Formats: sequence, structure tokens, C-alpha cells
Amino acid sequence: MLESKHVDELRQLLGDKGILMEAGDIAAYETGARYDKGRTAAVLRPCSTEEVSAAVAYCVRHSIPIIPQSGNTGLVSGSTPDSSGREIVLSLDRLTGAFAIDIDNRSLRAGAGWRLSDVNRKLEEHGLFFPIDLGADPRLGGMLATNTGGSRFLKYGDVRRNTLGLTVVLADESGTVLDLASDLRKNNTGVDWRQIFIGTSGAFGIITECVLNLEPLPRQTATAYLVPKSDADVMPLLRAMEERLGSYLSAFEGMSANAVSAALDHVPSLRNPFERGEVPAYVILAEVSRSWAPREGEQSLDQVLETVLAEIWESEAAPLADAFVGPAHEMWALRHALSEGVKHSGKLIAFDLSFRRGDIMTFCAHMRAEMPALFPEIRICDFGHIGDGGVHFNLVVPKDSEIASDPDFERRLRDFVFKVAVEDFGGSFSAEHAIGRKNQPYYDLYTAEKLRDLAGGLKVLLSPGGLGAVRFG
Amino acid sequence: MLESKHVDELRQLLGDKGILMEAGDIAAYETGARYDKGRTAAVLRPCSTEEVSAAVAYCVRHSIPIIPQSGNTGLVSGSTPDSSGREIVLSLDRLTGAFAIDIDNRSLRAGAGWRLSDVNRKLEEHGLFFPIDLGADPRLGGMLATNTGGSRFLKYGDVRRNTLGLTVVLADESGTVLDLASDLRKNNTGVDWRQIFIGTSGAFGIITECVLNLEPLPRQTATAYLVPKSDADVMPLLRAMEERLGSYLSAFEGMSANAVSAALDHVPSLRNPFERGEVPAYVILAEVSRSWAPREGEQSLDQVLETVLAEIWESEAAPLADAFVGPAHEMWALRHALSEGVKHSGKLIAFDLSFRRGDIMTFCAHMRAEMPALFPEIRICDFGHIGDGGVHFNLVVPKDSEIASDPDFERRLRDFVFKVAVEDFGGSFSAEHAIGRKNQPYYDLYTAEKLRDLAGGLKVLLSPGGLGAVRFG
Repeated sequence: MLESKHVDELRQLLGDKGILMEAGDIAAYETGARYDKGRTAAVLRPCSTEEVSAAVAYCVRHSIPIIPQSGNTGLVSGSTPDSSGREIVLSLDRLTGAFAIDIDNRSLRAGAGWRLSDVNRKLEEHGLFFPIDLGADPRLGGMLATNTGGSRFLKYGDVRRNTLGLTVVLADESGTVLDLASDLRKNNTGVDWRQIFIGTSGAFGIITECVLNLEPLPRQTATAYLVPKSDADVMPLLRAMEERLGSYLSAFEGMSANAVSAALDHVPSLRNPFERGEVPAYVILAEVSRSWAPREGEQSLDQVLETVLAEIWESEAAPLADAFVGPAHEMWALRHALSEGVKHSGKLIAFDLSFRRGDIMTFCAHMRAEMPALFPEIRICDFGHIGDGGVHFNLVVPKDSEIASDPDFERRLRDFVFKVAVEDFGGSFSAEHAIGRKNQPYYDLYTAEKLRDLAGGLKVLLSPGGLGAVRFG
Repeated sequence: MLESKHVDELRQLLGDKGILMEAGDIAAYETGARYDKGRTAAVLRPCSTEEVSAAVAYCVRHSIPIIPQSGNTGLVSGSTPDSSGREIVLSLDRLTGAFAIDIDNRSLRAGAGWRLSDVNRKLEEHGLFFPIDLGADPRLGGMLATNTGGSRFLKYGDVRRNTLGLTVVLADESGTVLDLASDLRKNNTGVDWRQIFIGTSGAFGIITECVLNLEPLPRQTATAYLVPKSDADVMPLLRAMEERLGSYLSAFEGMSANAVSAALDHVPSLRNPFERGEVPAYVILAEVSRSWAPREGEQSLDQVLETVLAEIWESEAAPLADAFVGPAHEMWALRHALSEGVKHSGKLIAFDLSFRRGDIMTFCAHMRAEMPALFPEIRICDFGHIGDGGVHFNLVVPKDSEIASDPDFERRLRDFVFKVAVEDFGGSFSAEHAIGRKNQPYYDLYTAEKLRDLAGGLKVLLSPGGLGAVRFG
């Protein structure tokens, strides 16, 4: 419950549209797209950096805990309130004031509330795009706060790499606004504070505006499915493709048979692209692309890809069992349906892991060998971004089984998977969803004490009033 | 002077090779490649992270100020001692223990003491390189501490973008070692502390080891000189090239007539490549490259570049006055000789500025119009990285003139140039050399008070013992 005097004051600051109190209005802000429901006493919806500052200052002075929330499409409970009902949500969804394209600089200054899809739709006519390719459709603020990567990381990198500037509101008694909104590409004149707010779940400040790097829109694309002879052939195959395709290569996505089958079983619009309908143990979706229009005398990208695959096919190492070039739309449709397919095949327990590239297949093979004895109920439906080491290590249990609703089972499972990933393979327990309530215990467990202490000190320095779902100290 | 008991203790910690005291041995460490001489009481040369830690802990406990020094090729007095003789130099030059290439991961784990040229020579046989292209030959630690960018930033980005992990020693009483040496590409599990040490001149900690991203070595290259019709045609030209060449475009370097003439006058090995020897007011060196070997049926890059230039030539906007494809070696030789040429043409006062890309030519034109009245003695010999907004705004005064040795003149000149660059054009006073003694006053002047306070707080948190040539607090 929020005292009525606070409601009145906040309404004064933000206007009638700036605060939601009715159960029907706030329900969507209490529920994450992919996880449990929390409770909030109110939702603040400021529409400018100044309003965010005023609201934050008020809440800090009155010890009202704030959860910044962007598109709320995350995986780890980083942007929803807990069950206490004490925390109030500060939504970025009205922060869509700024939208200024600088064509010469290939950059965009935009409010943190813009949705990725809207940003790219508006950029299209300029032949530009913000090159982070995601299944979900988050808002910019959340993409920054989690440092999303996505399917084309291999070519374009993550949000961090594509951020030029930020405006941030700190959780202190005056709601300090930090102007880090540079639009320069080279600038080394002190501490790069932007980096502290990227990927830290809004715990150190609320990002209200950003300046982003834009890339020329791809105008030619070709895709192929590659079937490696064995797990051990995946890395040689990636290296052979990188060697022959360089900056053309824009995706190298791995899909396990279980994930592909789940999609084919549960998403009726998909066509089974494999000979006799036999899904291979592992398939790779490779994409090449370039940003210019076709030119006379130049080979098409389909031709380039065919040539390169033929070369690899005939090479001494010959890591391929099968390969075929096909329509990009159809090939990506299967890739993008994996998530939905897996979700429909049972209760999903999702892990967003990453590894050195050379360790991905070894980790997955290790788990396929070890897990059945320890967790006979689970089905491994992994897929991922082989090109950058990210794995969506998805585990599914039958929906109607007892363990599907047993929190102790889920905890044991998480403990085990993270232990193997982090301790045995030197991997990461959060590749591109940052920290949230869900993986706070693993932050506490796997972060060196000194680094936790430093993060706590940094929190006091920047946002002593407290902010967000994550404890950094 | 360093007390003899300290010398004895430090020799105990680092061995005989680990400390230099003789004037002949330490002279090179007292003198920057491009600026004035300082004085040091001793040079420490630890050969491992553990030795750095031990030495730093000892110095902090005894209040001995340390200047970390890497290749010492900087521009801003960031790595040389002051004139007091109190500061001791801690050189990274023996930190060459680690050198481990991970081919699958396209990454290198290396000690901070490796020289860029040695790194790339050792990587060549694997078809890989660390893609930061510089005129100087720094060591990795200094490249990280200044976040160098160089001539191929447009394609590969800066050191920050290409860093996966770091090992850092903090200046506290125990010489804490921070292990941030991840070799993961996607990892968002807390504060990204690496970013604090990149570009901050060693003030927050000493980088002793790093994990770097490697890129496939270019196997095909083509270059052209482009003469824009006017300053206003430079950006349309860049955009036309980016639109038609995408990720092929690896450099777009601008050279003013004064800079080119200085090189042609003072570097005898160069050939004048222009018709009738007439140096145009502004020339652009454009480079395209790709990492694969030539393939049958594929146009050569020379052909691609010719085709694209013909298209631009015939386009409605037609921003070109002249353009010719030529041998990459020769074309780059002129570009790389600019620095030397300018240095030989008088006393050089160098500025490493950056702007929004669209502002570079406007800034330079503004200065060419304004400066002669204010500073009639100077000659503007600018060149730079148009593709990323960086400008080496070099000013030359006659060597034998009185003002050449007048510190007051130099200060007035710096004040003026930085004022216009930062205040009027929203540019940066240090694009890729970070902060040093030379530009400390401008850090103090142009950094918001809150950000300076935060940097001071961060310094206390990380390295309270003090470190480096720069005051961040």
C-alpha cells in the first residue's frame, strides 16, 4: 500500500496519466512475460527525464522502493515487483519524447521507452537499423540494462558495443541527472560511466535516454542449414565459414534435434525442411548478408554461399554431413519458433548460459550424458548462438508431472546446471539477461567477495537510495 | 630520491632485474616519445601479476607514488614521471609471460607488456590479428589504458570493443589482484569492472594481463585517393561509400593539403601521386578489405572499388572532383608519413580531437577561417579519421620563432582550440590518448563537477593508495 499523501504528491509531480493505481491498470506491470507474478502498490509513468528525476527524488526521500521497468520481456525477474506489494514500478513506457536521427553520424538519440520494433521501422526509410536482433520486442531502456546480444552478435556485437551515450537518473535525494549523452565515437576523457549502467538491471540508475550507433540495413541475405558430421565438427565448421566469409557471416545459430522437433510439433505453420522429415541431431542456421544492393557482375550471396559450402564439403577435414541453401524467411521461421515450440512441449526451465566458443558443444554433450541419471524427468532442448558462445539451455519437464510445480526440484536443477556451467566450464550463468531476482543467489555465490564489495561501494556512491530488483551489496 | 631501505626491499621483491637505479638505465623511462622529460628515482620492472601486486602493496604502504608506464608512446604525458623525482616508474615491459591463442574462440590471453607489432607478428600464421591499427608501436597495457582507436576504427572499433578480459592490480595496501580475465563474449553477471580500467590512464589500477578479441586477417585490400569537390562533399561521399561498400570499408582517412605537403617535403622516400604534382586542398584515403582469399568468379576488390567510384562519379550529387585507385602500400605510405612530415616542418603542437562525423569538416573550416587573425604564426596541418570523427588537429609554428618555446603561447593556443572544439562543437578534447598531465587542466575544466566527484569516489573505492599521472578526484 502506498499512503494517500504519497499518491497525491506523486500525482502532482507526474500528472494524472503519470500514476496508475487501479488493479486492472497495473496488472500488466506486475507480471513478467515469462515468470511469476509480483505485486505493486502503484505504477509511475513519467514522460521525461525531469519527471523521472522528480519521482525518484521523492521516493528516495520517503524510502519508497522503486523497480524500474522497461518492456518487461526478461527472463530473470529483473523488472517486476516482489510479492510484498511495497515496491512501486517506475515504467519507462512513456519515455518516447526524443527521436532524432543523425544521418552523417549514423546515430540515433531516443527516449528509453521506444520499442525495438518501432525504432527499426522508423529507421528503415533511411537505410539504417539498430542491429540487435531479438526474438522479443523490448524497449531500449531494458535492452541497455541487460545488454542484450541476440542472433547477430557475431557481426554487430551487443548493445554495449552500439551505445554512444546515455542520460541516467540516480537514486539519490535530488534525483541527480547524469548527462552522459555523448554522440561521439571516440572520446576518452575520463571514467566511462555509461558502462556501469549497461547490463546492471537498473540498480545503479535509471536510463531515460540514449544515443545509439546505427548500421546500414542489410540489402542482400542468404541462409543455409548445415548439418555437422558430429559435435566435434561444429567448431571446425565455424572456423571454415569465418575464414571464407569474414564480415559477410551474420549468424551461426545452433539448434538441437529436441528443440527443432518441439517447434515442428507445436507450431503448425512450419514446414519440415529435412529429407524424409528426419530431424538431424544438430543443425546450424548460417546467414550471410551485406548492406549494398545487388550490382552487375557481382555474384549473388546465394552463389557465394553455395561456392563456400562446396569448398568446405570438398576440404580435407570435411566437417559437413549435409548442407543446403534455402529461403531466409523459412529458415529463420524455424529458428524463431524454437522458443515457442519448447514452451508448448512442457514446463520450461530456461537457462541463458555462455561459454568460450570451443566449449559449447562439449558442455551440451556432457549434460546430455550426465543429466538423464540425475534428472530423468527432464528433456534438453538447447539452441543457441554458437558464433558468440551463447546457449539457450532449455530444460523441459512434463507439464502434469509433480516436479513441474516443485520449487525444490527447480532449485536443485538450477544449482546443478550453474555449477557445471560456471565451475567446470568457466562459463557465465547469465549471457544476455543480466541479473534479476531469479539469479541473484548465483550472483552471490559466483561473484568474488571483493567484486561484490566493490559493487556495493559503487551502489552507495551512485544510487544510495536503492533501486531495482537486484542487491549489489 | 628513494631511501636505500626501500630500494633493498623492492629488490628483494622483484630481483636484480626488477629494479633500475642507474641514470643511464632509467633515462628512457623518464622521457616520453613526444614530450618533455621528467625525473624518476627508480624504475620497477616486475615480471608477473604477483610481482606487480607485491611492489604496489609495498609502495602504497610506504606512500611512494607510482607511475605505471607501458610503451610510453602517448601524446599527453600520461605515463612519464613529473619533474619532482619523487615518483617511481612501474614499467610493464617485462610482463610478457602469458601468450595463449584460443583459435576456436578467436581470442588471445597475453601479458600487458607485449608490443602490438610482436602480437600481430605471432598471430599472422594463424590468419588472425588484433585489429587496432596505429602509427606508433605501443604495448598492450598502454593501449588498454588509453583505449586507442586508430585508422581502422570504422571497421573494427577501439580497444574497448575488442577486450574480453583483464587482470588488474589495485593500489591498496595489499595490492589486490582483480581477476576480470574472462574469455567470454557474452557475460552479463554484474558490474563490468573492465570498463573502468580501459581509457583511464592507469589511475584506477594497473592492467597486467588481458584477453583480446582477434579478427581474421585481411587477405585482399584495395585503396583509392578521393578528392571531394568541396568540404561539404566529404560527408555525402562517406555516406555514398558506406551505402555501397558496407563492411568492406575499412578506412576513410582525411588529409589536408598542408599535412600532405609537409610529408612530401620532408620524407624523401615518398612519390607525389597527384597530377602535375598539385596537392588538392583535401584528399581522402579510402580502403576496402576482406578477409578471404580471392575466389574464382568473384570480382577483385580493385574492380569493386572502381565500379563503386564510377557509380558515385555519375550520381546526381557527384561529390567527387577526382578519384583514383592505386597501390595500397604507396597510398598508406603517404598517410603514415603525415605525422613525421608535420613534425619536421616546425614545432608541433598536437591535438587529438573528435567530433560528430558531420562536424569534422565544419570545425576545420571554422578554424582555418578564424585562427590566422588570432594566431598568425601557426600553420594548420590536420588529418584524421573521418569515418569515426577523430581529427589529429596539428598546429605547427616555425621552429626558430620566439613563440615556439613560449609556454604561455602554447597554453593560450590550447585554451582556444579546446574551447571551440568542446564548447562550440560538442567535441572531445581527447579522442584516443586519454588523460595525462598535459590535458589534466581540461579534464578539470570540461568535466561536470558531479562526474569529477564520482570519479574521485571511485578512485577511493578502487585504488586509494594513488596511482598514475592523472588526478581523478
